[in-house]
Amino acid sequence: MTHEAGIPLGIRFKLLSDTPQDSAAQVVHDVVVGDYRDLETLRAFARGCDVITFDHEHVPTEHLRALEADGIPVRPGPDALVHAQDKGVMRARLDSIGVPCPRHRIVSDPQDVVAFAAEGDGFPVVLKTVRGGYDGKGVWVVTSPEEAAEPFRAGVPVLAEEKVDFVRELAANVVRSPHGQAVAYPVVESQQVDGVCDTVIAPAPDLDEALALRAEEMALTIAKELGVVGHLAVELFQTRDGRLLVNELAMRPHNSGHWTQDGAITSQFANHVRAVLDLPLGDPRPRAKWTVMVNVLGGDYPDMYSAYLHCMARDPQLKIHMYGKDVKPGRKVGHVNTYGDDLDDVLERARHAAGYLRGTITE
Amino acid sequence: MTHEAGIPLGIRFKLLSDTPQDSAAQVVHDVVVGDYRDLETLRAFARGCDVITFDHEHVPTEHLRALEADGIPVRPGPDALVHAQDKGVMRARLDSIGVPCPRHRIVSDPQDVVAFAAEGDGFPVVLKTVRGGYDGKGVWVVTSPEEAAEPFRAGVPVLAEEKVDFVRELAANVVRSPHGQAVAYPVVESQQVDGVCDTVIAPAPDLDEALALRAEEMALTIAKELGVVGHLAVELFQTRDGRLLVNELAMRPHNSGHWTQDGAITSQFANHVRAVLDLPLGDPRPRAKWTVMVNVLGGDYPDMYSAYLHCMARDPQLKIHMYGKDVKPGRKVGHVNTYGDDLDDVLERARHAAGYLRGTITE
Repeated sequence: MTHEAGIPLGIRFKLLSDTPQDSAAQVVHDVVVGDYRDLETLRAFARGCDVITFDHEHVPTEHLRALEADGIPVRPGPDALVHAQDKGVMRARLDSIGVPCPRHRIVSDPQDVVAFAAEGDGFPVVLKTVRGGYDGKGVWVVTSPEEAAEPFRAGVPVLAEEKVDFVRELAANVVRSPHGQAVAYPVVESQQVDGVCDTVIAPAPDLDEALALRAEEMALTIAKELGVVGHLAVELFQTRDGRLLVNELAMRPHNSGHWTQDGAITSQFANHVRAVLDLPLGDPRPRAKWTVMVNVLGGDYPDMYSAYLHCMARDPQLKIHMYGKDVKPGRKVGHVNTYGDDLDDVLERARHAAGYLRGTITE
Repeated sequence: MTHEAGIPLGIRFKLLSDTPQDSAAQVVHDVVVGDYRDLETLRAFARGCDVITFDHEHVPTEHLRALEADGIPVRPGPDALVHAQDKGVMRARLDSIGVPCPRHRIVSDPQDVVAFAAEGDGFPVVLKTVRGGYDGKGVWVVTSPEEAAEPFRAGVPVLAEEKVDFVRELAANVVRSPHGQAVAYPVVESQQVDGVCDTVIAPAPDLDEALALRAEEMALTIAKELGVVGHLAVELFQTRDGRLLVNELAMRPHNSGHWTQDGAITSQFANHVRAVLDLPLGDPRPRAKWTVMVNVLGGDYPDMYSAYLHCMARDPQLKIHMYGKDVKPGRKVGHVNTYGDDLDDVLERARHAAGYLRGTITE
């Protein structure tokens, strides 16, 4: 999707891909297949690139430092990106710049977890591996001391966090360039199902204006203080008592910003490319009153293409975005966007299309 | 741009390109470099394709018939496409289905031209080679019998047409699928400079509703009668006495439809892909009150990229579409789209950006 956004600007990508079948490898002209965890592969790949950016956060921080030392611009740079790679580093940094987070502590064993729980409201407690988790993976909601043993089995550092009593999840998406220019997209509501993002509504319905402004300010502050270049998604809890707490950070175009492809003047992908190249940023304002994004998960149909007939005929305004991935149950294989003036209608159209593509709706 | 529109639908292209540097070859993954005039090249390329389509009309009609005979779906098919390839065939067919055209006749020598002129209002007369012309090439406005010799020197058939007394040029863009579903985009005004499209305004300002409807009907009739599959652009003269006459046909996404990328719910490129695959068509309605497209021609700056800084900073809503072509004076190397509620503002922004990118405006 970043390649797609780069085409009209004449920005040409060279892609380092895990396999020749990866989504981006199917559509980018210049593809190198290799392992992003191998420094020599990265070095050979980076030669001749004007700038390096990412569609995930898993490239080892020390490899990115080595590329920077070689003189290759890496955006976002490793000193920023580490905050999206390591939840322990992220929490410590947000604490130090005064951005509110759930109560948290690095814990080293189940006894530590019990002590952490006792300092607050007791169990449940959320445990997370500090590195490598996504879409609910590497996250445990622990309701008793007995359950606290599991996360430590992998032998990696674990972060304990209070289980926040939230009314909903929000996301504040901002983009920042090396010049320091930054733009903020409208704050969205993000609805999760089984720990996986399901629906995003832009803008977040009935969000108090002061709270929306506060969320944007938090994201802009984080982008500035951490030196982020490119897109930053700040996932937030809106608590029952009216506070905003940072859940996660992502430093790349993010699922909570996919609505911008069809709903904003400039998409998150286009603005990420512009930021990474230190070009002036595009207008982040919405083009419609409401835009809804619903993820398409793999279901029982290996061939989603046959569902296009129904979905396109039913809703000529529907925007389908499929990733060319093999369909596996529960895997994110695409998303749909809808927009319009009536939120109920916009939501229904997006949910129907996503359900039909998945195979959970058959009429 | 068609590849760009295919990405979100998971439609993968295989490209037959003249050179490895062609615009599309820079961004499509699967590129074969070869000569589209060579039947064996076409046959080898077409093997394994589900369907073949085009971004120009120059593939020889008989080669396309051979591919069809091999069982490869060609869309638009050669029996339709020939009307966009051969102006003589096109004029004869439009006459036979009652679509109004400028007065015309195939002429075989300068004496014929003099006779053709005498039957109407005399000189000037427009002469066109029946095949191979575009952007003013292969077209002569002949003001005297002496000038009438030039077009015959190439030894190809020549079509004579009256020089139409028009107030402006319009374009009616429609898309038709093999199922027979068709959609019509709003009729646009197309302004030419030196025979090359410069500015497109969508919808055409101050166009009488009945005349707009008539233009859409003409384009839908042509698409149906000629069996067009995919995008059809019908370039029209609006005459001083209130008639519409067909100037040219194009059976592919067309310059007069580039505004749809940012100004319509479904772009001409997305709808061309959908039609070619016989998928239900997307909504062609505009997303903004006014959308303006201005072509970027090559100027004195070989590096247009440096102009991005000014253009993007001046207008964060600007949509730039560059083709990755080498800059040569007068060559179409990209276009810009702007949209909004105030036509004067939208026009000024597009013209300023295109002029700045070309180098004719420097502040």
